[in-house]
Amino acid sequence: MTEDRTLNETAAFTFSVHARDGAARTGAISMPRGEIRTPAFMPVGTAATVKAMYTDQVRALGADVVLGNTYHLMLRPGAERVAELGGLHKFMNWPHPILTDSGGFQVMSLSKLRKLNENGVTFQSHIDGAKHVLTPERSMEIQALLGSDIQMQFDECVKLPCSDEEAERAMRLSLRWAERSRKAFAGQPGQTTFGIVQGGAVPRLRVESAKALADMDFGGLAIGGLAVGEPQAVMLEMIEVVEPHLPQGKPRYLMGVGTPDDLIESVSRGVDMFDCVMPTRAGRHGLAYTHAGKVNLRNAKHATDTRPLDPMSSCPAARDYSRAYLHHLVRSNEILGMMLLTWNNLAYYQELMAGMRAAIAERRFQDHKAETKARWARGDV
Amino acid sequence: MTEDRTLNETAAFTFSVHARDGAARTGAISMPRGEIRTPAFMPVGTAATVKAMYTDQVRALGADVVLGNTYHLMLRPGAERVAELGGLHKFMNWPHPILTDSGGFQVMSLSKLRKLNENGVTFQSHIDGAKHVLTPERSMEIQALLGSDIQMQFDECVKLPCSDEEAERAMRLSLRWAERSRKAFAGQPGQTTFGIVQGGAVPRLRVESAKALADMDFGGLAIGGLAVGEPQAVMLEMIEVVEPHLPQGKPRYLMGVGTPDDLIESVSRGVDMFDCVMPTRAGRHGLAYTHAGKVNLRNAKHATDTRPLDPMSSCPAARDYSRAYLHHLVRSNEILGMMLLTWNNLAYYQELMAGMRAAIAERRFQDHKAETKARWARGDV
Repeated sequence: MTEDRTLNETAAFTFSVHARDGAARTGAISMPRGEIRTPAFMPVGTAATVKAMYTDQVRALGADVVLGNTYHLMLRPGAERVAELGGLHKFMNWPHPILTDSGGFQVMSLSKLRKLNENGVTFQSHIDGAKHVLTPERSMEIQALLGSDIQMQFDECVKLPCSDEEAERAMRLSLRWAERSRKAFAGQPGQTTFGIVQGGAVPRLRVESAKALADMDFGGLAIGGLAVGEPQAVMLEMIEVVEPHLPQGKPRYLMGVGTPDDLIESVSRGVDMFDCVMPTRAGRHGLAYTHAGKVNLRNAKHATDTRPLDPMSSCPAARDYSRAYLHHLVRSNEILGMMLLTWNNLAYYQELMAGMRAAIAERRFQDHKAETKARWARGDV
Repeated sequence: MTEDRTLNETAAFTFSVHARDGAARTGAISMPRGEIRTPAFMPVGTAATVKAMYTDQVRALGADVVLGNTYHLMLRPGAERVAELGGLHKFMNWPHPILTDSGGFQVMSLSKLRKLNENGVTFQSHIDGAKHVLTPERSMEIQALLGSDIQMQFDECVKLPCSDEEAERAMRLSLRWAERSRKAFAGQPGQTTFGIVQGGAVPRLRVESAKALADMDFGGLAIGGLAVGEPQAVMLEMIEVVEPHLPQGKPRYLMGVGTPDDLIESVSRGVDMFDCVMPTRAGRHGLAYTHAGKVNLRNAKHATDTRPLDPMSSCPAARDYSRAYLHHLVRSNEILGMMLLTWNNLAYYQELMAGMRAAIAERRFQDHKAETKARWARGDV
């Protein structure tokens, strides 16, 4: 039974690199539920919804995969409930690939009264204070109940800066949990699981983690524990340190990253997948990402500006409304303001990824990167 | 100049009744910006947005006209600002007809430190406490600056119950303000202004008001000051009392009404137009209007219900998501929950109006009304 599943899975989950330009690569993950073009940005659908967006809008922007959060979904409505209702895809009306995190990161950042030991983490829900336990086995069980296509190993993510000893302890624990997660993986054929490189900001720990995970039977590898407070330079250095030890034939996923600049610099260093709440969260707070950089619509200078937000965008939110109107919606705390800016931001992120994929395929990634960054630097004039 | 405008306006603003069934009528208002099929429900776009809806969704549901609020828009972003930006249609990206209220109702219900005299109302903004004055002349000026297609006279709306003396005083003041509003009307050709029948719950006052307004040169007549706390029976009685005195050739608009039952009973008594925040406000609070009546998605019984909200609806929100999912979104305070339920509710209201229009055209309105009410009475089983 386990043998068969592994065989089917290997057959159904594939990753191929179509073109390289320096360390940057473009390709595709193929899965039963569809193809993920890489480099890919995954909009975050925390509680079974990409906030303020209809799923068909998310799809139309070019998103091939969304992320679901194990921590949020286990608390509400509950993993068994989602399974009973036919799984997360059906529940949220998204028939395309879904990646779920393991819950490890949110347990550390959101829950109350955490206790961590070798077995896992005991914590209280931030919603109702109820006690829960997450272990590698339970995390994988939850992700299988959700029906996730790409399931993440359970890991411990420490905040930076931290001592080398603390980073080493958490990295080693995460490696043991990687083994347990892989064994506990209960996905369907064509679903897969990714390991997560940890090790804080310590190159030798990162390398040790990457090497150990590369030897395990994971469908892909993630770099975790970054974008947790450290400078961008540290994050990029860690990617560079780890990259040579990641298998070329497997997708690399940089978790929880980041700004448009983080994305372009990370793709430049060989990363294939990203997720981040930034475009959706910023959109709910009046901040827009555009081809000319970041624009704060709350700013009074937009009150009489009849220009659209981003004429280079193909998104109706960026083209069909004046900045004055968006400013008015943001100032009035209107839901439509959040809807339009989230839409614009996710559109920009997807256009950024599509532009990078095309540039890599045409072997002009460095020029494309320089042009893109020059536009940001000129700013919104 | 005034002569010419009146002539052009008469040519461009027309109302024709296509069919009658008892007192119920169906027809169309024709204006330069488009046709309004009656009986019509106007979604409320308070602050230049129908909350939680894209304008193209509102349009696709069959809405021919939306309502804008003079009170809200004069405070933020300001009428002169909207005019400078090209008018309300352009501002909110809605090129179809817009009706604006006069501000009178909201001044009474929302503002602080009101002082009313013959000239108008002085009040403080509920947003920032700034002092403002609304008079018939300023209200009409604001509505012209917004570019409203149907502009409402400035009136005084009293809360029910109130003394006959109070109702009479406010009605007489509203009649004098009707004259001043009509004179001050500064709309473009094809735009028009409606008078508002007042008189509380006192039949003789309502009749006096209706007769006086029928003699003035208004494009249509509204019945105001109802749905302000009185029983439905009182509201319907006031419509019946007023109806014989309203010109047959002009549209009748029942302001701020109401529940689906209010709408069907009012159409039955000869009303052509409605507006109400109910479908949009309810949608933001987990309440759905369906062919089977009202459904509270917050209720725990929906947590495991895989059925769609309303299979008789043509709206994706009512068909493509399980009640369990909608329940989850509402419980989690997700914006998508507000988006989907608002969409469903406005779809139901528009389908209700379309059904009434068809039934009147086919002279089967009473049967249609009985069937519709029987479905509501059976409830959501």
